[in-house]
Amino acid sequence: MQGSMVPNLSETAFAEAFVRRLPKADDGTLPHVLRTIVPHLHGLIRELRPTSADWRKMIEFLTEVGHTSDERRQEWGLLFDLLGASALVDEINSRRPKQATPNTVRGPFFRADTPKCTGGSDISLDGVGERLAVFGQLLDLDGDPVEGAEVMTWQANSAGFYENQQPDLQPEFNLRGVFKTDRGGRFHYLTVRPAGYRVPDDGPVGKLLGQAGCPLRRPAHLHFIVTAPGFQTITTHIYDGSDPHIDEDAIFGVKPELVHAFERTDIDGKPGWRLDFKFLMARAREGAVS
Amino acid sequence: MQGSMVPNLSETAFAEAFVRRLPKADDGTLPHVLRTIVPHLHGLIRELRPTSADWRKMIEFLTEVGHTSDERRQEWGLLFDLLGASALVDEINSRRPKQATPNTVRGPFFRADTPKCTGGSDISLDGVGERLAVFGQLLDLDGDPVEGAEVMTWQANSAGFYENQQPDLQPEFNLRGVFKTDRGGRFHYLTVRPAGYRVPDDGPVGKLLGQAGCPLRRPAHLHFIVTAPGFQTITTHIYDGSDPHIDEDAIFGVKPELVHAFERTDIDGKPGWRLDFKFLMARAREGAVS
Repeated sequence: MQGSMVPNLSETAFAEAFVRRLPKADDGTLPHVLRTIVPHLHGLIRELRPTSADWRKMIEFLTEVGHTSDERRQEWGLLFDLLGASALVDEINSRRPKQATPNTVRGPFFRADTPKCTGGSDISLDGVGERLAVFGQLLDLDGDPVEGAEVMTWQANSAGFYENQQPDLQPEFNLRGVFKTDRGGRFHYLTVRPAGYRVPDDGPVGKLLGQAGCPLRRPAHLHFIVTAPGFQTITTHIYDGSDPHIDEDAIFGVKPELVHAFERTDIDGKPGWRLDFKFLMARAREGAVS
Repeated sequence: MQGSMVPNLSETAFAEAFVRRLPKADDGTLPHVLRTIVPHLHGLIRELRPTSADWRKMIEFLTEVGHTSDERRQEWGLLFDLLGASALVDEINSRRPKQATPNTVRGPFFRADTPKCTGGSDISLDGVGERLAVFGQLLDLDGDPVEGAEVMTWQANSAGFYENQQPDLQPEFNLRGVFKTDRGGRFHYLTVRPAGYRVPDDGPVGKLLGQAGCPLRRPAHLHFIVTAPGFQTITTHIYDGSDPHIDEDAIFGVKPELVHAFERTDIDGKPGWRLDFKFLMARAREGAVS
């Protein structure tokens, strides 16, 4: 029976055998996804030619990435952020007219339960940092104001930490708020100027990519999610154009339309900053959810 | 500052930006590995075009694969086994002369602490199953016997389970042993005929790939690791050619040289089986470890 009918597999044949065994299936179904992934995976292995020891180390790394993830921390999310994959998935899923404000990655510090605030209020609950007055305006693509839209914002503090990273050091909901746009499509609030920060490098992902020489800094930014009936939701950042790391955002979120200047101003008679910007909203497509 | 110098990234530009930021580095170093992986990963995403919901589901799956892995179970290993990736890595790392016995995947049930046994002894410690007499011979590529080699074997029982999967049901080290080859390069022992089995499908990997229609059966086999000074170590299986799943081994381990017939025979006056095979060992390359 030695030398039976079972074919001897060459390097390319393993992936071919995998695909041959799977049921034929429509785009987007699990068998189709696997038929697409596996030849890429095998191509990559043939190109890299890992030793057995390298391969074991890689499996240990992947296992550790899972073990480091829990309800408070998504190490897989961080890995895909730092590899630019999250930015690409976001880009694929947020096509809109060229003049509309683009989306960028939402990031892991978002909180759905952010409280509603009255216009002009101060979202810095501990008052720590350089004061910043934010003046935003929401327009449709014809230049008409979008009234009654909800603008959620969140940001790091002047040391580069979000309140949910420092539950013992910052008041809950510090530097977070939801505002409504007025008749002119405007919203306004007070806060502090955010600092840029280094993504977590105490886990397997930050350690490995830091060792490889990947930039781990995020330039200073404010987060926004803007929702209005009949319009595509905007999930984006406003970046501080003066940040020295503006050209190498660790997670590839910077787009030219999102980079702004903070201008010197006086707030309540003391020196501070102001930020002015417009968001341009595209109409929702027929039948689209947002 | 709107419309600054930061380039607006297109779909292909995310991976290009990633590669551009990394330090130039030699083959096999971490930056080189990442430079190779990331364009493949992005190409795959552009091809699959996952929705944000698909992407989140994928991250949940990867996280769960890590969470399911512990000291007793390597779910990542299982995933790469079922995708044919382990077989490919093994193939890349075990090139040897065409007439030599090929390697195949070692699998997760190996135990380094397997006890040494005297030739002819019975490794079935519970006596459950159809009896099988194994007669092996180790030859070099000139056909000369390899004396004093160590032959480790392990196998599933007649229900398809390894002893370390059933610590409460099987005696420790059941169906495991290490034998030495004699002057003629021969080794011989008694055991029971192993059954084929289904790979674990109670975790995220088996569930997902089973749903996709991947075969999850492994045809019946015996495992061997053969070591002899001056020769390349052989880590391989002998497959039962009569197993109905011989053409669709879940982990792509079947190679024609490894498929054998079990022949009817009498053992101690009772009906049983015998298995005869030869392993052909290649000399170790100069300076190689094994």
